[in-house]
Amino acid sequence: MPRTKRAPSAARKLFGQRLRAERHARGLTLEDVGEQADIAWNYVAQVERGERNIGIDNMAALADALGMELAKLLLPKEEPRLH
Amino acid sequence: MPRTKRAPSAARKLFGQRLRAERHARGLTLEDVGEQADIAWNYVAQVERGERNIGIDNMAALADALGMELAKLLLPKEEPRLH
Repeated sequence: MPRTKRAPSAARKLFGQRLRAERHARGLTLEDVGEQADIAWNYVAQVERGERNIGIDNMAALADALGMELAKLLLPKEEPRLH
Repeated sequence: MPRTKRAPSAARKLFGQRLRAERHARGLTLEDVGEQADIAWNYVAQVERGERNIGIDNMAALADALGMELAKLLLPKEEPRLH
């Protein structure tokens, strides 16, 4: 059933920002992460900018490439919040 | 650039299981959640079964429909793990 296209979510922007921060923290390039996750590096760049409605399977592959739990890429900080 | 189709991720299954558990905990039907998130109820059912590579925008809409943070739907338990 067709419906109005959804506006980009805040989650998309957060995921992109966290992905970039964690990639930089590891000294990895877009190419490094893309190769590890089997995703084109320019797609990874678009995800980091919040330009793509990335699917959960690719999100999981990117978290794996960074050696992280996916949930942590959807929290504002690296550590889960306690409240 | 075409590439081999990725196998369904464990994250997909976890997200579906957590979504269903939280929906049930709130006494909501697939139709309730689908209407709130503006997603067809049968698509929500497929997501709960791990059959769909759901995009982050729809994941965020489903979390919103349950009044939850998206990250919590990607952790095995309701509370973030502390280790």
